[in-house]
Amino acid sequence: MIIVLRSGVSEETVDAVIARVESLGFAAHLSRGTHRTIIGLIGDEDPAIVGRMKSIEGVAEVLPVLPPYKLASREAHPQDSVVNVSGVKIGGGFLGMIAGPCSVEEPERMDRIAQAVKASGANLLRGGAYKPRTSPYAFQGQGEDGLKILRDVGQKYGLPVVTEVTDPRNVDVVCRYADMLQVGARNMQNFVLLTEVGRTNRPVLLKRGMSATITDLLMSAEYVLSQGNANVVLCERGIKSFDPSTRNLFDVAAVPQVKQLSHLPIIVDPSHATGVPSLIPPCAMAGLAAGADGVHIEVHDCPAEAKSDGPQALLPTQYTDLMAQLRQLAQLLGKQLAA
Amino acid sequence: MIIVLRSGVSEETVDAVIARVESLGFAAHLSRGTHRTIIGLIGDEDPAIVGRMKSIEGVAEVLPVLPPYKLASREAHPQDSVVNVSGVKIGGGFLGMIAGPCSVEEPERMDRIAQAVKASGANLLRGGAYKPRTSPYAFQGQGEDGLKILRDVGQKYGLPVVTEVTDPRNVDVVCRYADMLQVGARNMQNFVLLTEVGRTNRPVLLKRGMSATITDLLMSAEYVLSQGNANVVLCERGIKSFDPSTRNLFDVAAVPQVKQLSHLPIIVDPSHATGVPSLIPPCAMAGLAAGADGVHIEVHDCPAEAKSDGPQALLPTQYTDLMAQLRQLAQLLGKQLAA
Amino acid sequence: MIIVLRSGVSEETVDAVIARVESLGFAAHLSRGTHRTIIGLIGDEDPAIVGRMKSIEGVAEVLPVLPPYKLASREAHPQDSVVNVSGVKIGGGFLGMIAGPCSVEEPERMDRIAQAVKASGANLLRGGAYKPRTSPYAFQGQGEDGLKILRDVGQKYGLPVVTEVTDPRNVDVVCRYADMLQVGARNMQNFVLLTEVGRTNRPVLLKRGMSATITDLLMSAEYVLSQGNANVVLCERGIKSFDPSTRNLFDVAAVPQVKQLSHLPIIVDPSHATGVPSLIPPCAMAGLAAGADGVHIEVHDCPAEAKSDGPQALLPTQYTDLMAQLRQLAQLLGKQLAA
Amino acid sequence: MIIVLRSGVSEETVDAVIARVESLGFAAHLSRGTHRTIIGLIGDEDPAIVGRMKSIEGVAEVLPVLPPYKLASREAHPQDSVVNVSGVKIGGGFLGMIAGPCSVEEPERMDRIAQAVKASGANLLRGGAYKPRTSPYAFQGQGEDGLKILRDVGQKYGLPVVTEVTDPRNVDVVCRYADMLQVGARNMQNFVLLTEVGRTNRPVLLKRGMSATITDLLMSAEYVLSQGNANVVLCERGIKSFDPSTRNLFDVAAVPQVKQLSHLPIIVDPSHATGVPSLIPPCAMAGLAAGADGVHIEVHDCPAEAKSDGPQALLPTQYTDLMAQLRQLAQLLGKQLAA
Repeated sequence: MIIVLRSGVSEETVDAVIARVESLGFAAHLSRGTHRTIIGLIGDEDPAIVGRMKSIEGVAEVLPVLPPYKLASREAHPQDSVVNVSGVKIGGGFLGMIAGPCSVEEPERMDRIAQAVKASGANLLRGGAYKPRTSPYAFQGQGEDGLKILRDVGQKYGLPVVTEVTDPRNVDVVCRYADMLQVGARNMQNFVLLTEVGRTNRPVLLKRGMSATITDLLMSAEYVLSQGNANVVLCERGIKSFDPSTRNLFDVAAVPQVKQLSHLPIIVDPSHATGVPSLIPPCAMAGLAAGADGVHIEVHDCPAEAKSDGPQALLPTQYTDLMAQLRQLAQLLGKQLAA
Repeated sequence: MIIVLRSGVSEETVDAVIARVESLGFAAHLSRGTHRTIIGLIGDEDPAIVGRMKSIEGVAEVLPVLPPYKLASREAHPQDSVVNVSGVKIGGGFLGMIAGPCSVEEPERMDRIAQAVKASGANLLRGGAYKPRTSPYAFQGQGEDGLKILRDVGQKYGLPVVTEVTDPRNVDVVCRYADMLQVGARNMQNFVLLTEVGRTNRPVLLKRGMSATITDLLMSAEYVLSQGNANVVLCERGIKSFDPSTRNLFDVAAVPQVKQLSHLPIIVDPSHATGVPSLIPPCAMAGLAAGADGVHIEVHDCPAEAKSDGPQALLPTQYTDLMAQLRQLAQLLGKQLAA
Repeated sequence: MIIVLRSGVSEETVDAVIARVESLGFAAHLSRGTHRTIIGLIGDEDPAIVGRMKSIEGVAEVLPVLPPYKLASREAHPQDSVVNVSGVKIGGGFLGMIAGPCSVEEPERMDRIAQAVKASGANLLRGGAYKPRTSPYAFQGQGEDGLKILRDVGQKYGLPVVTEVTDPRNVDVVCRYADMLQVGARNMQNFVLLTEVGRTNRPVLLKRGMSATITDLLMSAEYVLSQGNANVVLCERGIKSFDPSTRNLFDVAAVPQVKQLSHLPIIVDPSHATGVPSLIPPCAMAGLAAGADGVHIEVHDCPAEAKSDGPQALLPTQYTDLMAQLRQLAQLLGKQLAA
Repeated sequence: MIIVLRSGVSEETVDAVIARVESLGFAAHLSRGTHRTIIGLIGDEDPAIVGRMKSIEGVAEVLPVLPPYKLASREAHPQDSVVNVSGVKIGGGFLGMIAGPCSVEEPERMDRIAQAVKASGANLLRGGAYKPRTSPYAFQGQGEDGLKILRDVGQKYGLPVVTEVTDPRNVDVVCRYADMLQVGARNMQNFVLLTEVGRTNRPVLLKRGMSATITDLLMSAEYVLSQGNANVVLCERGIKSFDPSTRNLFDVAAVPQVKQLSHLPIIVDPSHATGVPSLIPPCAMAGLAAGADGVHIEVHDCPAEAKSDGPQALLPTQYTDLMAQLRQLAQLLGKQLAA
């Protein structure tokens, strides 16, 4: 940690700052510059300590040197983590291709969509049973009934299933049916929920919040990891921006950034990132080319009838075409797309 | 609702769109322009329907005309709502002046701070017992022990208390001690939590999410209102922006915007909005001048010892000076600051 | 300047970095921490040097300690600057109240508007003759003819005039007619134009760019100051944000931020900052309450006929009402509104 | 254009609005809904008219239906445009690979870099002679001397040259030396400069502004096109965002968005978009995979000595490795990289 003192502080203030930081357990190393005096601190950086340092009289700025996450950092775990979702590997060269409708709807529709995405090469099936909707009047999902439909269809086609959990009281029931728990963007900083999913041993798909920095995302992963659950896959799904022409802004650079800072796998979700079907294929290609460990796509056989988020879904035939392109690109990049 | 068709659609497509929207219960009204054809829809707008319309073949855009919230809208309730927090009114000309430390710490400190802010004119006391922290390693609050300290101190000084609830499982316990439930910025779209606090009759302080639009904020209020709890006070506390020089960006225009669109009271929180003590007084003044129904300020008697968010707290003496200024401004504006 | 080295760098690398920074004229002061090594540099910080340091092998981060502007900084000039615009003072307790139409249109309309705003208490008259329009097909202003109309009307009512200059080739002609040169938001980083207006002795109204940080704004002021023109007034006029409900986002905290960092006056422009007439009065009040040295308002007597930006103009009667409120607030704050 | 009236407007107001829009030359088509009345307007949409409509008494919103650009739109020109830069084609399947240092420095260095990038497959050489710098104290470029060095080196290696023009008074001199004129991000809405480069017949590389929407970018292209210069290549180079971990945010979805809305070629500049060398290769790959017509990369043989922007440059060897990857990807995508 580095402390920058205000310009023109007195000798007494400098001494008082040093005494204070030493009382907090740090060794202090003073550098007097032409215009400013700085103090290098030697000891363990702790986010709470950074806050307190800032409030010491005479301190202008406190600059942390280490990232605030530990378990999630690449320094702590130099090799890529590979997360195993009931036999499907994500990370370390293995691609997780997640597809399915926004919400679980009728069993027949779920079956048709699962059959189609399986045939196109998806290896994980998604579908929402508990839906976080901005309107209290919108369809909120079918709950446990939806979970059953999803699990049954997944088993029929040999596809492990991913579904969102939104309530800490529902983590148990979702674990009974799902192979992977999704924490949605709006809950990325729902620390109560992160702690609960961290207490399970189920793989977690953690979606980036719409205004979360890369550091925020890795801190939320750290919550899960710190509870003992090491099976975290991150997901870039678009952030807020000033241009209303797309629903969100797809931050493709988040993929290599996360890969450099962390050992955790990261996939991309161009469906939510753009909200525009015609932009999904080029953004999926971009995500894979940037190094993503998988692609999450919403697929629906009749978007105009979907109970939620129809407009951003691909048709099964569009998904087939996209998967053909992605498979070629994966091959060029030396990545494996599990059969 | 207005549907804009793609340019160059065939007559068959136009007919098909009309047939489809009529089957959804709308009367359709066609306008053929030089370059584009539009269809005005007469019937009740429903967010889910807007989504489905967008996926109809031939449709370029669907433009809702009505706001997606109802109970929260000024049209539904033309008079200003006044929320009564155990005798302290907020809204309709009454100012809620909330002050206190970020976290409830030792009882003696809480007592000293409460005494000071009461003397300066605060009419509500805040303090966190369940803290949503970005780091799993940071101080997470004292839980029910903190609630007890807060309630006891509040009663001693005649100050109703406001505290955050982060877990739907804790709503009951927090209701036993608190006069007002705070839903924090990171939980503004935690719909499970909004639903639970909506089922109580306790006033709710709903803080705006860091990337929430005004519409998003009012939709989250609608969640609480739709459960039967009409006692919602909104709070502008800063949003994300590109300039790292302040913690967040204080959106003062949110105050008049909310007042025009909704009957709900709205207060400002310049402590979180700026994160910089020297910016808190001018932003508090700005918020009041823009029409806010109150001001939320973090006050701590020794920021360098605070267990959380010390750097953004005012000292009691700074709070006293600010309140003197705010009182004069309130008088100029014809607002009442309860004794 | 502080250099943070990459974790695990070798002794040879540390020595090489030190040798390199010493060769650039700095004294280096080494601090070895538990996890990282940092080097404090003593010498003059120069933006170009910061860039080069970052590229030295082994360097993880370079943290500047001083602001990159000098003449604009409060440290260089502790007293508030007062800018004199042909007799009207702005700053140091004096308020510049600028009003007028977006564009100069017919002489009769300009005369009516000037008479009205003068009667309401404006002390500076605005009107655009060279308009930066996003569409090449939109009205681009009347050029020198517009300048003449503006000057004549200003002289008739005793109001010094402010008008925008967009082309370095037009600085001379604009100086012949205008008392103050406006550099618009889109040209805030048009360094060629900043240099040209810096070579005149005319007061400059420098509007903040839509995605400019406070540092960027002060750096652009530095361009003007560095050419010898000390008469710069800054203007907060809204920045880009993710909420499309207003044209821009009014960053009221920019006012106290600039006042703490710089001696230059800063005014607010709620017309451009919000783009919504009903939000202009509350935001004008907020700006003044936050410490602004003036308010810039677009006024038009028939917005539905305006050649540009009609929808964001106040009517003369609305301006009169607003000025009555602002005058009371100015009195409370101890600011002077020149007769 | 669609006009939405305020709720509860009187019959007289409706009639007055219709009379007014008819007087502006539009045919009006009325739709009365349950809650709101809308008017569809038939006639030519003009940005200025949209503004006036909004100010008509009783009007709540005016929704344009057509994009405000014409010449730049895909509707006006369905085939992809191919821009020819002294023999190097960009667009329509041809890739423009632009490389070189940020600034032109010594002739020997320019020669070394040009030789290296040519050998790696670049087909256009860049280098700045007029540099827009945020600090007035930073290196501003060598002007015409730099142009000469750039042209001579480009001719030696058979590479047409691209260089930035920042001043409308310098367009002529830059045209004497450069094969393509760059308009930088900070000048994207410098309409005076756009008009001047539009009056030449030289290809223009128009970089997206840091807070420009896709519509803003295409409107700026429209300025150049409307002057008669059809040779415009757009460039995505990163926009402002809330995460300070990269210099800008690379908006890869801008590539397919532009391609759907416009016929103009668009390339990507991951050097400026990220500002971090290790992120440049993955973002370059992402851009190409998303459909870009070329890649712009800053290359410097000794970033620690660069006079500007060293930290974001690739070394020649890094560029060689990246080009090898890009060539394979181009082949997969069926794009041609000119010899």
